[in-house]
Amino acid sequence: MEIAELKAKIRDIRDFPTAGILFKDITTLLKDGPAFRYVIDAIASRYQKERVELVVGIESRGFIFGGALAHQLQAGFVPVRKIGKLPGKTIEVEYELEYGRDALAVHEDAIKAGQRVLAVDDLLATGGTMAATLRLIRQLGGYVVGVAFMIELAFLHGRDKLKEESLHSLIVYD
Amino acid sequence: MEIAELKAKIRDIRDFPTAGILFKDITTLLKDGPAFRYVIDAIASRYQKERVELVVGIESRGFIFGGALAHQLQAGFVPVRKIGKLPGKTIEVEYELEYGRDALAVHEDAIKAGQRVLAVDDLLATGGTMAATLRLIRQLGGYVVGVAFMIELAFLHGRDKLKEESLHSLIVYD
Repeated sequence: MEIAELKAKIRDIRDFPTAGILFKDITTLLKDGPAFRYVIDAIASRYQKERVELVVGIESRGFIFGGALAHQLQAGFVPVRKIGKLPGKTIEVEYELEYGRDALAVHEDAIKAGQRVLAVDDLLATGGTMAATLRLIRQLGGYVVGVAFMIELAFLHGRDKLKEESLHSLIVYD
Repeated sequence: MEIAELKAKIRDIRDFPTAGILFKDITTLLKDGPAFRYVIDAIASRYQKERVELVVGIESRGFIFGGALAHQLQAGFVPVRKIGKLPGKTIEVEYELEYGRDALAVHEDAIKAGQRVLAVDDLLATGGTMAATLRLIRQLGGYVVGVAFMIELAFLHGRDKLKEESLHSLIVYD
C-alpha cells in the first residue's frame, strides 16, 4: 500500500477541537480493515528484531495502536493515562501545552527495570505528550527501544523534542 | 493457559473509582505479554468464521482490545466515544447509569448498512454501556455478529440486558 493511499483515507476536519485547528481524523482510516492492518504491520516490522517486551500506549487513541502492536509483537501493553484514571498507585509527570499545563500518569509497578519498551501514539504534533511519557517510562527504569507514530505533523517540529530517540512515523505531513 | 491463571493476573483495588466498589484492575494482566496474547487469540478464535468486517471498541479500555482484535481478524476498527471527542458528524445515544445518565457517540459514517460488526469492551458489569453501543451500531445499519468481553461480573446480571446477542466473556466472576 502506498503512503498516498493511506493519506487519502485520513480526513481533515476544520476547527476541531478549537477554531483554527485543522484536525487529522484517523477514524476514516481505522475503519478500513486492510489500511489498519497495513499500518500496524508496517510499524511492527520495524521493531520485530528489537525484542520489545512492553508497548506503552497513550490515552486514548494510542490505546488502539498500542493494543494491536503489543499483540502483534507478543509484548505486554501498558497504558499511560490522564491523572485519576488508573486505579493503582501511580507516578505522574506534568508537561507544558501551548496554553497551560497537563499531566500524565502510569502505574508505579507497570514496568520492571531494564524492560525493553516501545512507546506509541497515533500522531506526533509538538511532541510534549510523548516526551512526558518517555520521562515516566525511564523513571520506572524502562529501556526505550523505539518511539512510533502513525502520523507526524513535521511542520510542528515535535521531532526536535525527541531527537535522541529511535523515532519512526509512517505518514508525514510537511 | 487456564482461566485461573488469568484471574490471578487481575488485581482487586478497593474503593475505586468510589467508596464501596471493588475494582477489577486489568492492567496487571495487560502488561503480561503471553496473557494478553492468549486473551486476544481466545476471543478472536470464537469469531474467526463470522467474517467480521468491523470491530467496535468502547472508550477507552475497549480500544486496547478492539485495536488488537481488529488487526487479528483483519477487520476495521470503529471507536465509540463520549460526547464531544469525535471530530466528525456523530449520532448519539443516552443511557441510564446507576446514578444519573451518560451518553455515547459514533461517527454517522462509521458503519455501512449490512456490515458485520463485533462489539468489544474490557468488562461487562450492568450492561448499560454495551446496550447503548449496540443501539448506535444498529441505528447505522450494522449487523451485530457478536459481543465480546474479557471479564463478566455475572453477579450484576448485565447479560440480561444483552440476552438476544451472541455474547462471549472469557473470565467470569460469579
